Amino acid sequence: MDDEHFMKMALTEAQKAFDAGEVPVGAIVVAGGRILSRGHNMVERLNDATAHAEMIALTSAFNQIGAKYLTEATLYVTLEPCLMCTGAIYWSKIDRIVWGADDEKNGHRHFTGDNWAFHPKATITRGVLAQEAAELMKAFFRARR
Amino acid sequence: MDDEHFMKMALTEAQKAFDAGEVPVGAIVVAGGRILSRGHNMVERLNDATAHAEMIALTSAFNQIGAKYLTEATLYVTLEPCLMCTGAIYWSKIDRIVWGADDEKNGHRHFTGDNWAFHPKATITRGVLAQEAAELMKAFFRARR
Repeated sequence: MDDEHFMKMALTEAQKAFDAGEVPVGAIVVAGGRILSRGHNMVERLNDATAHAEMIALTSAFNQIGAKYLTEATLYVTLEPCLMCTGAIYWSKIDRIVWGADDEKNGHRHFTGDNWAFHPKATITRGVLAQEAAELMKAFFRARR
Repeated sequence: MDDEHFMKMALTEAQKAFDAGEVPVGAIVVAGGRILSRGHNMVERLNDATAHAEMIALTSAFNQIGAKYLTEATLYVTLEPCLMCTGAIYWSKIDRIVWGADDEKNGHRHFTGDNWAFHPKATITRGVLAQEAAELMKAFFRARR
């Protein structure tokens, strides 16, 4: 299944973050079956609290296509997007968002509740390879305690 | 009053955006009475839907201090932050947020409702030079019609 294929690539990005001592989240932007961009969390490396995987992948995708909207693209991200990334996804007008593990603590739904915060035309798919993404997060925080 | 002084500087940033054909929003980060960074909306110039004034000012402030948190700093922004920027402000742990005009359509409260979406310790002040900020927005959208 395509979603699992691309989510595996997002998990590879998350593993890169893990290996660099970053909270392990990875993201991929795909359009027409082709990868436009990849990103992994770089908050520590860039000393920038906004350098989340999704932000990096989105900005990289805008650069790649030379346009500021990502209609007809799909974002794969290993973890439920936070409020910031959800807002960025909204502005990008990206068509479809696929995330792996839910994030009870920092996921956007903690703040938006039942409000739909993505673009009105966007669709979401949750839970693709969720266990793998959650395990990576757990392993990271276990190692830090 | 200090807040008006710094908001005037944020308005100067907003005017730069206006002059460049960008939605006119400006932001300033201040710590210890000193300006750490400035930013204005660059969505068109960078072809990046995430290049809001606050994002640019925050990332620039992180670079300036070489750290990923902005505790004991204040963000001045001419318009109520959107969902993305509110999430970024949350992650930055910035102490205080001062905004000018409310943004009924794209402001974060459109999505978060009564939920507090800033850092638990942060405080907000609204309405500083709100009319100036709102007039600039109106002039921009009037010219575009």
